[in-house]
Amino acid sequence: MMQWVIGIDGGGTKTVGCAADVTGKVLGWVEKGPSNYHITGVAKFTAVIASIIDELAVSLNLKKVDLLVVSLGLAGADRIRDKDIVIGALAGLGLTCNYLINSDAKIALVAGLGKAEGIVLIAGTGSIAYGINRQGAVIRAGGWGHLASDEGSGYAIGRQAVVRGIRAAEGRDKATVLMDMIMEYAGLTSWNDMIGYINNQSTSKGNIAAFAQVVGDAAKQGDQVAIEIVKQAGDALASLVESVITRGFGWGEPVQVCMYGGIVTNILMVRERLEEALAKRANLVACKTQPVEGAVRLGLEWVQNKV
Amino acid sequence: MMQWVIGIDGGGTKTVGCAADVTGKVLGWVEKGPSNYHITGVAKFTAVIASIIDELAVSLNLKKVDLLVVSLGLAGADRIRDKDIVIGALAGLGLTCNYLINSDAKIALVAGLGKAEGIVLIAGTGSIAYGINRQGAVIRAGGWGHLASDEGSGYAIGRQAVVRGIRAAEGRDKATVLMDMIMEYAGLTSWNDMIGYINNQSTSKGNIAAFAQVVGDAAKQGDQVAIEIVKQAGDALASLVESVITRGFGWGEPVQVCMYGGIVTNILMVRERLEEALAKRANLVACKTQPVEGAVRLGLEWVQNKV
Repeated sequence: MMQWVIGIDGGGTKTVGCAADVTGKVLGWVEKGPSNYHITGVAKFTAVIASIIDELAVSLNLKKVDLLVVSLGLAGADRIRDKDIVIGALAGLGLTCNYLINSDAKIALVAGLGKAEGIVLIAGTGSIAYGINRQGAVIRAGGWGHLASDEGSGYAIGRQAVVRGIRAAEGRDKATVLMDMIMEYAGLTSWNDMIGYINNQSTSKGNIAAFAQVVGDAAKQGDQVAIEIVKQAGDALASLVESVITRGFGWGEPVQVCMYGGIVTNILMVRERLEEALAKRANLVACKTQPVEGAVRLGLEWVQNKV
Repeated sequence: MMQWVIGIDGGGTKTVGCAADVTGKVLGWVEKGPSNYHITGVAKFTAVIASIIDELAVSLNLKKVDLLVVSLGLAGADRIRDKDIVIGALAGLGLTCNYLINSDAKIALVAGLGKAEGIVLIAGTGSIAYGINRQGAVIRAGGWGHLASDEGSGYAIGRQAVVRGIRAAEGRDKATVLMDMIMEYAGLTSWNDMIGYINNQSTSKGNIAAFAQVVGDAAKQGDQVAIEIVKQAGDALASLVESVITRGFGWGEPVQVCMYGGIVTNILMVRERLEEALAKRANLVACKTQPVEGAVRLGLEWVQNKV
C-alpha cells in the first residue's frame, strides 16, 4: 500500500490534477475540461473531479482508499458559501479522503513563493492580485470577473484592441497596423466583419483574450495604439498589486510578488511597466512552476499536520 | 374588407407591433418578448412575429389576406445576409403580404424626423448613432454590442459604476455615495456581494444598464464619481454623432438629430453635455414618438409607391 495525495487546479477553461506520494514526489498528471462550478454547474464540476481521481488511481495503479487528501484550488472558493457547496458535492463521491478547498489564487501563491505568504499576481484571461500577509489576512484586488473589467487581463487588452479598432474605423481614433493584425488573427477579411465575430455566440472570452498576444506583438513592433493599450494594462496591474500592498503589507521592505499568466509572462512591455511602477515596493518574479503544485504542497502540509 | 399594414419594432428585450389602415390611422398595438434573432434564434423570432400578426388580426377582426405589408425594424438587418435569413424565415409563415426589412435604427430615424434623412442617436441599454444623408448613404457609429462597449449606453454607464465602486472598495478610487445607491438598488447589503451579483447568470445586460438611472440620480445630487461617469457618457455619445456628421454630412448647416432611449431622454446631464458638444453641428430633439411608428410609416410609403 502507498499513501498518496492529489492537487487540483480547477479553472474556467481547464482543470489540472497532479498526484504525489507523501514525500512530495510527483507520480502523475492529468488534464480535463473546465471545473469552475459557477460556470459549469455543480454536477459537471463533481464529474470532472471524480474523473481526475479515477484516472490517476487507475493509471498509477493506486487505491482510492489510500488517497489521503484531495487539495483543490478553485475560483471563488474564498467564500464560505462556495466552500459548503463544493464540500457537499464532493461528499457525494463517497470517498474516505479529506478535501481541502482553497482559492485558485492561494494555490498559485503557494506554488510561486513556496509558502502562503506574499502576493501573487495572475494575469491570464482574467486578472487578480491576491495577498496573504504575515498575520494570515487575505487581501484581494481585482478578480471580479470580465464584466467589471479585470483590468490588465488578456480579456481587457483584447477588448480594448477591438474598441480602438472600431473607433478608428469610424474616424474617432487613429488607424494603425494593429487593426490588420487583429483581423488576420481572427480570420476576417474586413473590419466590418468584426461586429459578427465579437457578437457570435461561439466567440468566447478566451477568443477575445487571445487578441492580447497580438497586441503584445504589435507593441513590440512599435504600433502606437498597441503600446498605449499594453502600457495601460501594465499600469492597471501595478495598481492591483499596489492596492494589496497598501492594505495588507504597509510601507516596509519590498514584498515578494510572484506572477502567473500569459500577460505578465509573455508580454515584455507589461512586465517592464510593472517593474517600473512597483520598483520600490515589490520584488517581482515571473513563475515557471504550475499553480497545481501549490495545491499539492497544501495537501502535503495537511497530511504532515495531521500526523 | 379593409386593407391594413403592420409595423414591428423588434428588439433584444421586447417587440412592439402596431397595426394601421392605409390612411395611417392606428388600429391597435401589441407587445411581445424579444425578437432579435441573433440572440433568440430564427425559430423564436419567427414565432414572435407570427403571434403579433395573429393577435392583431384577431383582436381587430381583420383578415390576414387583407394585410398588405409587415414592415419590420430589426437589429443587424442592415446586412444583406441578415435580410435573406429573415425573409426566408418569414416566407415560411405562408402569408400573402409583403415584408419590408429595415434596421431598428432606420425606423427610429423615420419615427423621429418623419423621413429617412438625418441622424438618430439611440442610447438605451446599447448605443448607436445612425444617419442617412441626402444621397441616401447610411453612416453608422457605435452599435457594435456591449462587448465593444456601446460607449455612452446604459450598459456602459452601469458597468462603469460597478468598476469605479470596485476600485473604491480596494482603495484605488474615491468612495462616494454612488456605491451605497447602487447597492441599495441591487438589493445588496455589502459591496462585497456585488461580485456575486454581477457574475450571477440571472443578471442580464438590462440589470447592469438599470444602474445608469441611479448614476444619473447621484450625479444630480452632486456625486463626483457619478458626474464624471455621466459626463464621459455624454462626450462618448457626442463623439458618435460627430463621427456620423463628419463622414456623411460634412460641415454645412446643423444636422437634424433625433434622440431615443432612457439615457438621452431621462439623464439631463447627458443631454446638456451633448448639446454643448454638438452646439454648432446639430439640432438635437428628444423624441416622444415610438420607433415602431417609423416602421408603420415605411410600410405605408411602400403601399403608396406600389399603387
